[in-house]
Amino acid sequence: MQSIRSRCSALSEHPYFTNIIIGLILLNAILIGFETYTGIYERNLDLFTYADQLLLWVFTIEILIRLLGSRSFKSFFSEPWNIFDFLIVASGHLLVGGHYVTVLRILRVLRVLRAISIIPSLRKMVNALIATIPSMGTIMLLLGVFFYIYGVIGTTMFKEIAPEYFGTLHASFLTLFQVVTLESWASGVMRPIIAESPSSWWFFVTFILFGTFVIFNLFVGVVVTNVEEANQAENPSPTEIKLNQVQEELEEIKQLLRDQQVVNRTKIK
Amino acid sequence: MQSIRSRCSALSEHPYFTNIIIGLILLNAILIGFETYTGIYERNLDLFTYADQLLLWVFTIEILIRLLGSRSFKSFFSEPWNIFDFLIVASGHLLVGGHYVTVLRILRVLRVLRAISIIPSLRKMVNALIATIPSMGTIMLLLGVFFYIYGVIGTTMFKEIAPEYFGTLHASFLTLFQVVTLESWASGVMRPIIAESPSSWWFFVTFILFGTFVIFNLFVGVVVTNVEEANQAENPSPTEIKLNQVQEELEEIKQLLRDQQVVNRTKIK
Amino acid sequence: MQSIRSRCSALSEHPYFTNIIIGLILLNAILIGFETYTGIYERNLDLFTYADQLLLWVFTIEILIRLLGSRSFKSFFSEPWNIFDFLIVASGHLLVGGHYVTVLRILRVLRVLRAISIIPSLRKMVNALIATIPSMGTIMLLLGVFFYIYGVIGTTMFKEIAPEYFGTLHASFLTLFQVVTLESWASGVMRPIIAESPSSWWFFVTFILFGTFVIFNLFVGVVVTNVEEANQAENPSPTEIKLNQVQEELEEIKQLLRDQQVVNRTKIK
Amino acid sequence: MQSIRSRCSALSEHPYFTNIIIGLILLNAILIGFETYTGIYERNLDLFTYADQLLLWVFTIEILIRLLGSRSFKSFFSEPWNIFDFLIVASGHLLVGGHYVTVLRILRVLRVLRAISIIPSLRKMVNALIATIPSMGTIMLLLGVFFYIYGVIGTTMFKEIAPEYFGTLHASFLTLFQVVTLESWASGVMRPIIAESPSSWWFFVTFILFGTFVIFNLFVGVVVTNVEEANQAENPSPTEIKLNQVQEELEEIKQLLRDQQVVNRTKIK
Repeated sequence: MQSIRSRCSALSEHPYFTNIIIGLILLNAILIGFETYTGIYERNLDLFTYADQLLLWVFTIEILIRLLGSRSFKSFFSEPWNIFDFLIVASGHLLVGGHYVTVLRILRVLRVLRAISIIPSLRKMVNALIATIPSMGTIMLLLGVFFYIYGVIGTTMFKEIAPEYFGTLHASFLTLFQVVTLESWASGVMRPIIAESPSSWWFFVTFILFGTFVIFNLFVGVVVTNVEEANQAENPSPTEIKLNQVQEELEEIKQLLRDQQVVNRTKIK
Repeated sequence: MQSIRSRCSALSEHPYFTNIIIGLILLNAILIGFETYTGIYERNLDLFTYADQLLLWVFTIEILIRLLGSRSFKSFFSEPWNIFDFLIVASGHLLVGGHYVTVLRILRVLRVLRAISIIPSLRKMVNALIATIPSMGTIMLLLGVFFYIYGVIGTTMFKEIAPEYFGTLHASFLTLFQVVTLESWASGVMRPIIAESPSSWWFFVTFILFGTFVIFNLFVGVVVTNVEEANQAENPSPTEIKLNQVQEELEEIKQLLRDQQVVNRTKIK
Repeated sequence: MQSIRSRCSALSEHPYFTNIIIGLILLNAILIGFETYTGIYERNLDLFTYADQLLLWVFTIEILIRLLGSRSFKSFFSEPWNIFDFLIVASGHLLVGGHYVTVLRILRVLRVLRAISIIPSLRKMVNALIATIPSMGTIMLLLGVFFYIYGVIGTTMFKEIAPEYFGTLHASFLTLFQVVTLESWASGVMRPIIAESPSSWWFFVTFILFGTFVIFNLFVGVVVTNVEEANQAENPSPTEIKLNQVQEELEEIKQLLRDQQVVNRTKIK
Repeated sequence: MQSIRSRCSALSEHPYFTNIIIGLILLNAILIGFETYTGIYERNLDLFTYADQLLLWVFTIEILIRLLGSRSFKSFFSEPWNIFDFLIVASGHLLVGGHYVTVLRILRVLRVLRAISIIPSLRKMVNALIATIPSMGTIMLLLGVFFYIYGVIGTTMFKEIAPEYFGTLHASFLTLFQVVTLESWASGVMRPIIAESPSSWWFFVTFILFGTFVIFNLFVGVVVTNVEEANQAENPSPTEIKLNQVQEELEEIKQLLRDQQVVNRTKIK
């Protein structure tokens, strides 16, 4: 049993193993891409179905090897990317033959996401991006409060005037998201409304001023902080290198002084 | 009297007290959200009216407790967030039964803003955002001067050609705000105008070049400065830690030198 | 003569003098604003004409006082803002009674720009903005080269397909400016063109990728550099304060060592 | 032979040589610009044809001189900008008289790009821009993965509803590029689709949230890093200047201490 584990572990850590899996994910991606062209897909229906089944089983075996090669079930599933890989592949087996063809197709294309879990540099970057989410927490909450307030006010005020934009609370949220991206906020949303209710420009102007300011703060703040942290972590700044040299020199001076003290003391003796 | 004050103070500082109020604000927000769905609202008119009245009185009592628990009226109202809370709740009592149903509804949804005054992290962030406003003063003044000049020129030049965009000075300001957000500035505003007055492209191009440049400066300048200040305040940089060590070592060297001087002086004696 | 100069100089430097001029510029701005409302303007034609003439003469006298109060003609006109003030006011006299009513009006509204030359904080900021222009030189040249190349290619390729956007070289430049601001670049400009020439998507996609990247570089680069310089100039960083302390301490140590050398030498003697 | 090489080398490094070539590139650019005005072009067909041929031969001779002036063929073509120059000019000879008039014209306008290879500051800046491309590698790969996944999902889901936007996989990629620039993403693309499939708003909202966040990260990250590196490379920060002074002073102190040791030792002797 021990020997199976160590063999699987050695196999799963072999560079060829990873490269072959990356190649198969790429092949799978290309096949999924060709499937969207209805003509090509229907003429080669069998080929696509068999290739898909084959790749699903290869990925299943790959995950089994990595599972067997890990220290324990627990240690394998303690890594979130392994859970991610497992769910992606397992969903392919569970939903096969079902009626939810569109859901199945969307799940199958998510296999391409496994490129992230298997290419180390991509995994590192996504981990870094995920790590920035908590630091946005408070700003997201603040944005949420303002979206909610403007959503309710917008629905109350413009429900009759512009039902396609502010007919219900959830339609209003989508419209406010559109407004905050500045897309057709004036030509499409505001101008038809102020044609009937001329005083309601304040709703859009204040929302844009507030929304873009807070979002800009959010983005720039988080990103600049990340960049600086990354820069500091990767290579020490010239200032730090210099300071290290200064500290070494100070050590030397102290040593010189201590030597002298010894000399002085011996003289006194 | 003293005992009532200390009891109220203890009550208002109890963590449960704050959490319950946060919960009630959330409940109030959800109720206000459901009210926007006309069907749900009209079927449960009584429920919504009673719940709203109940919540208004609970918030009134909450503010009374915090007022009684504070050292004095003056100290309570010296905190702007308390004035904010007081006005929000008081307006609910004053305007009830009035004819301004829409105004009342908008005022009621502002109660959700109390989430900011009661959740410490949100309050801290909004305080920080408000603190950045003065530093934008001069740039806002500069923008104001240019908006005014372009507004007057635009109204003078395009009043007849595009009355819906530049018919009056205030319409021009709204159009210039739309142009500065780059929304439909060409397809919606400029192209119909240059179809009749081909040489007026300079008006839009210079305004956009100037406006986006100044606004970008404003935003990036303020935000980058804030981020750097926040970073410096939170945790000292590695450079500073090193410099503190250098200073300590210099102290040691001075001490060594002073000791030696004492030794030398005693020798001379 | 000397006494007139010193009196004018004292007058022009008096804080009331500046404040009154700022007030009159504001009044002038408000009058110019009201003039855009045709109804108000035509009913008070005389009032507006007289007020405008009066203000023009007051500004003329103001500039004369500042001119007389300056050391010499040369020193007055060596300050660009004074030339700016002089031209703005002189143009009001030269063009009065002419036929170019619109030009005159635009020139008159430029008097509001004098707020910049007279309010110190605005003048400082505009000077700072102007100072950043040379550092953009090379990037502007690079952008110019690419605008020119894409302009010529666009005109050559789309002259017949979309004459309103790419009919002539100057129309193409305006369209490219619109595309680089991302305004209706797809819905308005690209999609109608690719409906007839499907392979020309590369023209727009590469231009946007290149244009936004270079402009973003330009803006962020210039702005971040400015902000950092401004921060460093205004208040020294904690690192620098620490380093100054370190240098002082090193001076002390050197002094201690020199003292000791003197002592040692006297001992030897 | 040696003498030809040294003469060509001296000629090609003469400042007049470069300035004349810059002037001719400018002239060529202006001619190409005028060619786009059909009227002017057709009336002066001969002039344009002869001028173009003349300039092509001048540029050919220029490159020959620089080639002869270089140490060897290999050293000349080891500089990418030389290969660029060579290809631009060679293509003018190869394609002349061919049927591909549009291709030829586009190639001819690319000669304006030679301004970059010949003006040192432009060449330096473009080199710097090119140098940032590798650091974007991983983020581009991540963006590619997400574009691919959203492209396949979009084509699968909206092929029938919106064939002009999501009819084929490559049409979907173009639409996603439009959506990520926020151009008409709601008014043009999303709203017609959700009119038929109301639940598909998540596709656009998540794509925009993810896409703009990653792109913003990419841009700001790369640009801020570049700016900081450029600033550090160009002029040392005040901190570094101070640290250099500190190191010099430490050297002095060490020298003082060593002198003293020598004195002490001689005393002991």
